[in-house]
Amino acid sequence: MIQIGIIGCGYWGPNLIRNFSELDDATVVACCDLSEERLKKIQKRHPAVLCTQHVEDVLRNPAIDAVVIATPVSTHYPIAREALERGKHVMIEKPLADSSEHALDLVERAERHGRILMVDHTFIYTSAVRKIRELIDNGELGDIHYFDSVRVNLGLFQKDINVTWDLAPHDLSIMDFLLRRDPIAITAVGASHAGNNIANMAYLTLTFPDNLLAHFHVNWLAPVKIRLTLIGGSRKMVVYDDVEPTEKVRIYDKGVVVNGSSEKRYQALINYRIGDVLIPKLDATEALQRVAQEFVSAISQSRPALTDGIAGYRVVRLLEAAQTSLDNGGRPVELNGAMLGSVETARSTACAQ
Amino acid sequence: MIQIGIIGCGYWGPNLIRNFSELDDATVVACCDLSEERLKKIQKRHPAVLCTQHVEDVLRNPAIDAVVIATPVSTHYPIAREALERGKHVMIEKPLADSSEHALDLVERAERHGRILMVDHTFIYTSAVRKIRELIDNGELGDIHYFDSVRVNLGLFQKDINVTWDLAPHDLSIMDFLLRRDPIAITAVGASHAGNNIANMAYLTLTFPDNLLAHFHVNWLAPVKIRLTLIGGSRKMVVYDDVEPTEKVRIYDKGVVVNGSSEKRYQALINYRIGDVLIPKLDATEALQRVAQEFVSAISQSRPALTDGIAGYRVVRLLEAAQTSLDNGGRPVELNGAMLGSVETARSTACAQ
Amino acid sequence: MIQIGIIGCGYWGPNLIRNFSELDDATVVACCDLSEERLKKIQKRHPAVLCTQHVEDVLRNPAIDAVVIATPVSTHYPIAREALERGKHVMIEKPLADSSEHALDLVERAERHGRILMVDHTFIYTSAVRKIRELIDNGELGDIHYFDSVRVNLGLFQKDINVTWDLAPHDLSIMDFLLRRDPIAITAVGASHAGNNIANMAYLTLTFPDNLLAHFHVNWLAPVKIRLTLIGGSRKMVVYDDVEPTEKVRIYDKGVVVNGSSEKRYQALINYRIGDVLIPKLDATEALQRVAQEFVSAISQSRPALTDGIAGYRVVRLLEAAQTSLDNGGRPVELNGAMLGSVETARSTACAQ
Amino acid sequence: MIQIGIIGCGYWGPNLIRNFSELDDATVVACCDLSEERLKKIQKRHPAVLCTQHVEDVLRNPAIDAVVIATPVSTHYPIAREALERGKHVMIEKPLADSSEHALDLVERAERHGRILMVDHTFIYTSAVRKIRELIDNGELGDIHYFDSVRVNLGLFQKDINVTWDLAPHDLSIMDFLLRRDPIAITAVGASHAGNNIANMAYLTLTFPDNLLAHFHVNWLAPVKIRLTLIGGSRKMVVYDDVEPTEKVRIYDKGVVVNGSSEKRYQALINYRIGDVLIPKLDATEALQRVAQEFVSAISQSRPALTDGIAGYRVVRLLEAAQTSLDNGGRPVELNGAMLGSVETARSTACAQ
Repeated sequence: MIQIGIIGCGYWGPNLIRNFSELDDATVVACCDLSEERLKKIQKRHPAVLCTQHVEDVLRNPAIDAVVIATPVSTHYPIAREALERGKHVMIEKPLADSSEHALDLVERAERHGRILMVDHTFIYTSAVRKIRELIDNGELGDIHYFDSVRVNLGLFQKDINVTWDLAPHDLSIMDFLLRRDPIAITAVGASHAGNNIANMAYLTLTFPDNLLAHFHVNWLAPVKIRLTLIGGSRKMVVYDDVEPTEKVRIYDKGVVVNGSSEKRYQALINYRIGDVLIPKLDATEALQRVAQEFVSAISQSRPALTDGIAGYRVVRLLEAAQTSLDNGGRPVELNGAMLGSVETARSTACAQ
Repeated sequence: MIQIGIIGCGYWGPNLIRNFSELDDATVVACCDLSEERLKKIQKRHPAVLCTQHVEDVLRNPAIDAVVIATPVSTHYPIAREALERGKHVMIEKPLADSSEHALDLVERAERHGRILMVDHTFIYTSAVRKIRELIDNGELGDIHYFDSVRVNLGLFQKDINVTWDLAPHDLSIMDFLLRRDPIAITAVGASHAGNNIANMAYLTLTFPDNLLAHFHVNWLAPVKIRLTLIGGSRKMVVYDDVEPTEKVRIYDKGVVVNGSSEKRYQALINYRIGDVLIPKLDATEALQRVAQEFVSAISQSRPALTDGIAGYRVVRLLEAAQTSLDNGGRPVELNGAMLGSVETARSTACAQ
Repeated sequence: MIQIGIIGCGYWGPNLIRNFSELDDATVVACCDLSEERLKKIQKRHPAVLCTQHVEDVLRNPAIDAVVIATPVSTHYPIAREALERGKHVMIEKPLADSSEHALDLVERAERHGRILMVDHTFIYTSAVRKIRELIDNGELGDIHYFDSVRVNLGLFQKDINVTWDLAPHDLSIMDFLLRRDPIAITAVGASHAGNNIANMAYLTLTFPDNLLAHFHVNWLAPVKIRLTLIGGSRKMVVYDDVEPTEKVRIYDKGVVVNGSSEKRYQALINYRIGDVLIPKLDATEALQRVAQEFVSAISQSRPALTDGIAGYRVVRLLEAAQTSLDNGGRPVELNGAMLGSVETARSTACAQ
Repeated sequence: MIQIGIIGCGYWGPNLIRNFSELDDATVVACCDLSEERLKKIQKRHPAVLCTQHVEDVLRNPAIDAVVIATPVSTHYPIAREALERGKHVMIEKPLADSSEHALDLVERAERHGRILMVDHTFIYTSAVRKIRELIDNGELGDIHYFDSVRVNLGLFQKDINVTWDLAPHDLSIMDFLLRRDPIAITAVGASHAGNNIANMAYLTLTFPDNLLAHFHVNWLAPVKIRLTLIGGSRKMVVYDDVEPTEKVRIYDKGVVVNGSSEKRYQALINYRIGDVLIPKLDATEALQRVAQEFVSAISQSRPALTDGIAGYRVVRLLEAAQTSLDNGGRPVELNGAMLGSVETARSTACAQ
């Protein structure tokens, strides 16, 4: 039975407690938050759990095997570092850290101490994203031409991070999981309308080899809730609408067929193909339940988690580059695509379980 | 009775013929197209109209007062120039011309000859866009924070122009009409997937003073038809969904209220406001009917058309700058915002009619 | 070349003229309407067509082979009867006649004179309805359990007929074409809110053998336009949403599986099956074009039309029974299902063409 | 502090426990269910609650002030009767009882013993239904012409009750709350497709004086989830779509205006009015929280609950009449509208609190 301590019990905290509590092979033994009021509510529902305002009570508790960190982003690194140093397995809410340097440092520490480091990229564990990954792996979509994502809402204006660091980790992690490609460059433009210089809307564009383009619109100041991803493939195209209650993924047998000839390369003949639409049945399991299970299984089986530290690092690296572009008025920032090998290795191990 | 000649009878041609035919104070007397087959069909429906494959038959016909040009973009300039030189009033399908130089040249020639030059920015004549303009003018939306537009579909891959020149004129003209502001810079990124180096998808970003941001997604290779514009204002926000048959405009009484204090400028307190949604009734008049009427009225009244040459020039200038950015991998291209004064003058005259 | 005369050029008239005009093997030679204004408009667009206010000019014209009747329902019978008597083929807008007696009389006259009698049940010619028929014929839906149809809108309040006679012919004809079953009884309840005793909303219920149930909601006084049909089958279910621009038919691999045992017949074990949804691609041909072609082809080939007089009679018979129920406060009216054989014969001949 | 015992912890049970637990002035002290497994889960989450398989442990427990009954419908009456006899306040899940006789008997017993009897007509406590009631009370909708409700889904096939007794209580209670009118007659037609003679789909029609019509479609065997109510008024119309996450109520300024003249009463002139649509902001409070609070408040304040026994009786009476019609092949069943006075009295008292 793995003993778990949860640090940070705000918006997402109760969901983490509930999902870890329901696992057979884990128990939540401690919860930590600065807010007395929150702890009171938790204590009422979970009388057996140690509730504390002092993070040391969790980190220095030898009975605790693993910690889940759901605190503000800037505190992810120091808390996770100490937890790893004290021999605990660590799961961190997205994004993994506030800089790629911190992210890499955590990856290395976890490796050194033989501890699991996992990031909660929740959407990777949804049935929708898994189904799309399956379609890509099966070759059903063909070559991917573009990945277009919109995640907008009248959302909570954060004080410590801008909308990119808040919302884009979801979409960048989905993209990275699906495409498994390294971008060449990233551009980001945003704007702040609350008088605090914290961007509340931003557009990110990632260019890849082979004319693959990825684009993201994140926005806290939108009148409607849209979570829509278009994935254009050479054979089929997918619309992933996360707002739909049951029909989240639609597969369109639609596209163009180019009949080019070598001589007349600029006069390629284009035919349009419009076929059926398929809405596949998706498993209704809650993603966070799978997240909790994956963390616990990775610990038990001593194997990297599906969304391990490297996956977390990759997203942080993109956020950091986006921030640089944002700070420079949308100037493209080049990325060099190291590390793919190691991620692939790590992931293929995880997937094979 | 104004005698009209229509040059170019492809996709849009029959709609032009029909709408001009229905006007009281105009008659379509000639149609020109390279395709014999198209002319045959037109002749069958309109036996009294002169149908010809030779553009000179229209341009040199002294009985024709005004021409409507709906030919491929690269031919707009030479045909329009000759028409103006021959003393005819000219309406051109969007975009006005293939370069800002050509566009300006047409504006100047029209002025010199005292002839009407109009561009068919059809959407400006829709009830939806007019209603939104009214909301902005009334101050109901407050300061505009952003303009976000998506126009995607499995659309016709053009051979002579890319998706930006094909689709973005619609959205740029709407934006220009609504915001009446001059952008500081434009960025464009796109990709081509048909092996012909003609971008079939693109993202345009326009930055303005005061944190106003405009963004456009145009795409010929999308599985679904989306024509959605979000307009974020400081008081209210608008969703304009052109795919909706009747409820195209929705006004959201939604937003954030910032209660900043001078001392703690980085700790602005944000309150959220969520109120009713209003879907205003819109007049059902076909936009193209209004376009045709505006051209004929401008001629009769010797006044600039609402979408005059300058309006056309402004859109072409943006397309041109977008092309430069596109050709340079998304590097921001700076714009200097001359000419606004003259447009305003021209437009206020037109609106007052 | 079949010479056609069109009688009644109101709302639907111009569509009929256009579609018959576009056929290769037919010409519209005459149009008749009481309204001078309408005729004027038609004459302008179709200078070669004889436009007249006198129905005799059409009926007594020996050059005319066939007439299309789109007049108020009460006039269908006398006009069609005279046309048949004068040796003309006849197509009538739905419903075929104002009583089953009149409908049968037309069927018999047409037979006697060897003339084609067709009713314009337009929806039978849509790609959506054909696709559903195909699914039923293939056995893909299994046994049909129910047919539920809603056709509501803020529609035109008719003066001579109630909403049942106006809207229900569409849905009853679709149902009859798809189910090919004879109902046992019909119930209708309605209400009038315009102070004229003409029902502007009604509910029709048809019971069939084997627990098959059909139900119709027709309404001129609804705030939104809904045209939604649910078809529940033992294997799959269909949602036909005619308001959807392209995705009109959805096939749900959903249902219940009953594992009953003979002993415990009241304790049947029910399992739920939820699978994929398929939205088949549909041909975009306009239904009315197929209607026009079918009438002309039936004439040329001397064979019954797909929606022949008997199909028209069957719908009128249901409308008549519904009226009886409506007049009696919703008392069920029994039907005896003769005539199915002959319809089947007629139709199978037509389909085989 | 009111001590509450919950009897029946199936599907709805955990929601009841959670909502009563969160009240300030009530505590859940006991839970009863036949399933050991369910009790185990509850005990784990609520260690202080007495969990028992024996209903007597709750009913005979003198510390318990009030019981909430969420058992199968046929057991509502005997359990509630004993609870009332033992001096407990009683809240029962809809429908109140399995017959109007039983329902009335409970009403009388509660009165006799001075105890609160409440039925959980949850939808009455939603913000959507309250808003519509407000619109009706304000006269904004004018006279109500019809109430049309569709509640369909691939739902759970119940073994002891048919779809009418399962789903229609929701819609009948909404209708009764909104219209406050007594129907003249009810008709019900249904069908069973699971081989157990339990109708899994049904249509109910209620006629009222003044051409008011109410209609209900309830269905366990539908491929899609629809919960749509249309309310047609003489001034405005409402669409209540309970499946919409936030925009559940839409108010249409749409209708017809009849300009009748006394002479030509059959030639009333009808004008159509199409105006704006308003989607009012709704409070997001969970309805069941309000239900729980209402029960506890009614007890504390010794006043009838908003959905008291009489409201429950009225719905049961309609269900019973519908069953009679269903059993007689859709024959209309007349109702005589007693009791309205007393309900009104009871309710106006409740509303005034």
